[in-house]
Amino acid sequence: MSSTLVRVGLVGVTGYTGMELARLLAVHPSFRLAAVTSRQEAGQTLAEVYPFLQGFAVGDLVVSLPDADALADACDLIFLAVPHGAAMSIAAELLARGRKVVDLSADFRLRDTAVYEKWYGREHSLADALAEAVYGLPELYADRIAAASLVANPGCYPTAAILGLYPALARKLIDPDDIVIDAKSGVSGAGRGPVLGSLFCEVQDSFRAYSLGSHRHTPEMEQELSAIAGRPLVVSFNAHLLPVNRGILATIYTKPKDPGLSPAAAREAYASAYADHPFVRMLPAGRLPEIRSTRGTMFCDIALVADARSGRLIIVSVIDNLCRGASGQAIANANLMCGLPLAAGLGQAALVP
Amino acid sequence: MSSTLVRVGLVGVTGYTGMELARLLAVHPSFRLAAVTSRQEAGQTLAEVYPFLQGFAVGDLVVSLPDADALADACDLIFLAVPHGAAMSIAAELLARGRKVVDLSADFRLRDTAVYEKWYGREHSLADALAEAVYGLPELYADRIAAASLVANPGCYPTAAILGLYPALARKLIDPDDIVIDAKSGVSGAGRGPVLGSLFCEVQDSFRAYSLGSHRHTPEMEQELSAIAGRPLVVSFNAHLLPVNRGILATIYTKPKDPGLSPAAAREAYASAYADHPFVRMLPAGRLPEIRSTRGTMFCDIALVADARSGRLIIVSVIDNLCRGASGQAIANANLMCGLPLAAGLGQAALVP
Amino acid sequence: MSSTLVRVGLVGVTGYTGMELARLLAVHPSFRLAAVTSRQEAGQTLAEVYPFLQGFAVGDLVVSLPDADALADACDLIFLAVPHGAAMSIAAELLARGRKVVDLSADFRLRDTAVYEKWYGREHSLADALAEAVYGLPELYADRIAAASLVANPGCYPTAAILGLYPALARKLIDPDDIVIDAKSGVSGAGRGPVLGSLFCEVQDSFRAYSLGSHRHTPEMEQELSAIAGRPLVVSFNAHLLPVNRGILATIYTKPKDPGLSPAAAREAYASAYADHPFVRMLPAGRLPEIRSTRGTMFCDIALVADARSGRLIIVSVIDNLCRGASGQAIANANLMCGLPLAAGLGQAALVP
Amino acid sequence: MSSTLVRVGLVGVTGYTGMELARLLAVHPSFRLAAVTSRQEAGQTLAEVYPFLQGFAVGDLVVSLPDADALADACDLIFLAVPHGAAMSIAAELLARGRKVVDLSADFRLRDTAVYEKWYGREHSLADALAEAVYGLPELYADRIAAASLVANPGCYPTAAILGLYPALARKLIDPDDIVIDAKSGVSGAGRGPVLGSLFCEVQDSFRAYSLGSHRHTPEMEQELSAIAGRPLVVSFNAHLLPVNRGILATIYTKPKDPGLSPAAAREAYASAYADHPFVRMLPAGRLPEIRSTRGTMFCDIALVADARSGRLIIVSVIDNLCRGASGQAIANANLMCGLPLAAGLGQAALVP
Repeated sequence: MSSTLVRVGLVGVTGYTGMELARLLAVHPSFRLAAVTSRQEAGQTLAEVYPFLQGFAVGDLVVSLPDADALADACDLIFLAVPHGAAMSIAAELLARGRKVVDLSADFRLRDTAVYEKWYGREHSLADALAEAVYGLPELYADRIAAASLVANPGCYPTAAILGLYPALARKLIDPDDIVIDAKSGVSGAGRGPVLGSLFCEVQDSFRAYSLGSHRHTPEMEQELSAIAGRPLVVSFNAHLLPVNRGILATIYTKPKDPGLSPAAAREAYASAYADHPFVRMLPAGRLPEIRSTRGTMFCDIALVADARSGRLIIVSVIDNLCRGASGQAIANANLMCGLPLAAGLGQAALVP
Repeated sequence: MSSTLVRVGLVGVTGYTGMELARLLAVHPSFRLAAVTSRQEAGQTLAEVYPFLQGFAVGDLVVSLPDADALADACDLIFLAVPHGAAMSIAAELLARGRKVVDLSADFRLRDTAVYEKWYGREHSLADALAEAVYGLPELYADRIAAASLVANPGCYPTAAILGLYPALARKLIDPDDIVIDAKSGVSGAGRGPVLGSLFCEVQDSFRAYSLGSHRHTPEMEQELSAIAGRPLVVSFNAHLLPVNRGILATIYTKPKDPGLSPAAAREAYASAYADHPFVRMLPAGRLPEIRSTRGTMFCDIALVADARSGRLIIVSVIDNLCRGASGQAIANANLMCGLPLAAGLGQAALVP
Repeated sequence: MSSTLVRVGLVGVTGYTGMELARLLAVHPSFRLAAVTSRQEAGQTLAEVYPFLQGFAVGDLVVSLPDADALADACDLIFLAVPHGAAMSIAAELLARGRKVVDLSADFRLRDTAVYEKWYGREHSLADALAEAVYGLPELYADRIAAASLVANPGCYPTAAILGLYPALARKLIDPDDIVIDAKSGVSGAGRGPVLGSLFCEVQDSFRAYSLGSHRHTPEMEQELSAIAGRPLVVSFNAHLLPVNRGILATIYTKPKDPGLSPAAAREAYASAYADHPFVRMLPAGRLPEIRSTRGTMFCDIALVADARSGRLIIVSVIDNLCRGASGQAIANANLMCGLPLAAGLGQAALVP
Repeated sequence: MSSTLVRVGLVGVTGYTGMELARLLAVHPSFRLAAVTSRQEAGQTLAEVYPFLQGFAVGDLVVSLPDADALADACDLIFLAVPHGAAMSIAAELLARGRKVVDLSADFRLRDTAVYEKWYGREHSLADALAEAVYGLPELYADRIAAASLVANPGCYPTAAILGLYPALARKLIDPDDIVIDAKSGVSGAGRGPVLGSLFCEVQDSFRAYSLGSHRHTPEMEQELSAIAGRPLVVSFNAHLLPVNRGILATIYTKPKDPGLSPAAAREAYASAYADHPFVRMLPAGRLPEIRSTRGTMFCDIALVADARSGRLIIVSVIDNLCRGASGQAIANANLMCGLPLAAGLGQAALVP
């Protein structure tokens, strides 16, 4: 399949995840963007919606109204970049027509519909599709993703948190009952809706906490981290809004089970867990990651600090929330689902500065 | 004393704390800036060094070389805005000449010279002066500050952390052995030295952690928090660099001693502890602070979140690192030392947006 | 009048000009904010709308629905910070009730209703009030402002442009038919309405031109500059959007009438024109202004560059668009209208950095 | 030649142009970075110097001291990213050893050594090499670049200005004696040297003009624009510093020779001049460019505004100063010199947001 072009569709191009998908698909070597939909922008070309796409073939594509038959006709695989709730029914229609789907919303991430209903405040009507859905974190589930028809693309914060904690939990290095995740995200994570709190003058040169202890990404993290730990766990997850376009930095506070855990042993556990996963970069001892080193890329940069004074193992995990935390990861999942190399179209170096 | 002008001096005007002192002194109702020194800028007027001061009387002041006799002659009270190490000897000279000193460096903050020597890597030669120095946090030590000749102005991170934790520790609401302080600071906290890491293009649109578990402000916090708690404690203090000019937001993770601690009870403890301290603003339930609300002011904005799921009391404490965390606090201390109202010259509303 | 408090009202507190008026009035020595209205925020206290006002007396004021009788009852002078069109009728009602009005909208700036109707696309129904209105630029019209009941507060771009050009045009130094104004403004100038183009991620780390040759502030500049020049003139005025909160920098390209005009002569003309106007700061030769030096203040910083190579006199004029370009200037005008010193409540140094 | 790898070298990796070359070469399909030099960083790997390059083959390359023999041995073509003055002699040594050179400094841009000496304040010792050097603007000189051994890579401002003015001047649409270029650049254009004026807190949330009428890029523009116009001309070129990482927007004020020049005719002249040059994007009527649409790319986005009121044709030209204005253009030139497609390795869409 990798030698021919795969026809892909994009439902919901107006938001930042849709914009980022368009950016990445504009130069993907094996995906050809064949259909783009948006109720809001229908009738315009992609280059009219996003002037930075002028001069690319995708820029000439005309945005259409969403229609399951037309999408199924034109595309082999469809990315859903619409709000949770809306994704659910479109996904069902496309799956019923035999198409592959990567859903960037939260609709198929939580395996327990009761948890979904509690945190998202709406009914989940598609337990069947949910049963088939694979959680699209390639480092953990590459084989299952490759065989899936429906991939639930992880949330941005969960991607940073799970990759940061996976080796420590899987190898039982830390106490699963004492985890604090202090996460900071760029403004694109808040979406492209024109709301007061996302205005430049409300964010620039400032910083604030939000959703402390109550962010919707919490149950998603707990589901995956519990699976890794082999038993249920609860985390203290807390979000902050950075005055940057892109990027998440999560500072994760944990307590080693063995107070004598050496920095070298911790580092070795991570190095071996991620040995075959080039998108995860373990930083050399003494280095701490920064958001910009992942800008526009799939990298997750991780550093470990063993703080003997306070008896803690601190894990710092950094990603680009739009690329690794959403659209880039969606393309990586689509790559796997189509038999392409994981990194196809995702090989750029970060844009620094 | 409040009806006449107090002549004040400023040693070290080149850095951001010196700049902020100049900004505040330019319009202070009772302090008249009588001498400004800097080896680097000597010979220029303040308005040449800082064009934003053109048009103010202080702008016409000529920067001179530091000289203890001249300073003691011209000034009743002197602010030291020079690096640690340098402050120590100047302070001694001025105290010997009967002048009052507010030192913005770390030289007189740590009561135990062994701790100073360990964290700052240099000998402390002034144990006598140190014994007299008062730690300049007005909410805790106003009376002693009013009587002091030498005030050690607190560090920016300690100011945010101590004010955030004071009621909870003083009233024994939390476990003193399980405190994580995740702090984020604007770039002015790194000083005005022209170093690569402070360049615009190295910081803008990015974010990074630094000095995890090893920041020099840690022993200062532990000293004061231990005094409040009534016994020695260790904190996990961790710093991050925000792409903003000013501001610190500290997210403080604690565990209530009583798992059933109600949000209302926690809030009430803080409200009563700070009832007579108008610079500390307890936010209404459901509100979280943001850095900009303190921009250019002495306010410390605090919110409490009782997270029952994870069994934590989360405290968010916000200040302006340059004003409350350095120069504004220095002026508040000088106000007290001169019998002026605490808030003299410090009454502005935050510059928002 | 200056010894007693003047009761003032604020109609329209939701936008950035309303926010800035609230910030300045919170600490004004002679104005007491007695009524604040907003359809959108009615029922909340000012501190709920603007948390940075917690702790100030104005923060406890409850926002009410706009009502002319109530406003006239409670206030001696009212600031109108509502969109053009809306201001017109409220102003008439308040003037009819004998109250003084400072209107921050464009409704009373253009003396020719036909020009207003052409550029603003709506009828002007209050030719009578318009005839009484005084254009509120204190450097030009202080005496008339002091006697006025209705002041039309200037637009932000016109304030920067007119102050930049006034001495050169008044003294016939430049060709009035060859003026290019290349102006750059911070995002607060675009208002606080939640629109896509003002979102953080649409503005941050970017820059763009807008309304080239067609900005609504053009006729206002031309009206005032023509009056200064003594004959009609047309300017090329062009706007750009800076990723900053506040500030306008206008680079103004002119051609000296006398090709041999010396830099010193040009500078002298400006110095004498502004000798009695402390809010205008002429920078020393060789210095160029920066936006931050005016942040939060009434200053207009001006530099002149005589470029012999290209035969041009370049004028750089900088203000804070929210303070000098809107709300601070409104307060200066109100000061004059109430017999207070021009600078009452407006004496702060710029917040730098 | 295009089927095999070309070995390239990079002299001077410490600055932003060196960093940007490293970023682009990390994923170039036909260039293999074989040697990197820097006096300052010698001995470290590229990934140690630039952590964002960890995980790329180039990241493992060890930075060495500059040595002409070693460079000539290891490389077919060498990029010089060192300051003017330093580039001159290295270039000569490499040319003498038969290597191709793309020089990113100003040393070979000005054909008249007297002009170089006047504006750069140093002697030019290599008139011979200068005579061979080709000015590396592909839209104008692609054929000559393809045949050159030494390419003088254009300055960032000249790239934006020349591309903006080329069709208008070449087709005699405008008066060559009345051109004002008001240019605004991101901070990376000021280099990576740790100087006070480039610190985050000196630039963030501010904006300023600099080098009005006296910027060193002026003679370079005038040289090329004069060549296009067919006779000597002088421009008024003026620079401003934007608080953004990358990007230049130049607003160019011109006067049409024919006052009746229609917008359509102007647009048509540009469209046909750039018909075969895909890196130049003429924006549709009514659109104005923004910096972010070119971020990380080779695009030059141009819009035309015919302002009949003021009798001006306004040209807005936007590039990324680091990519199109320096390192990306250097790679495009190297592509041509090596028989590769102009756009090899330069095909990405802009990173937006």
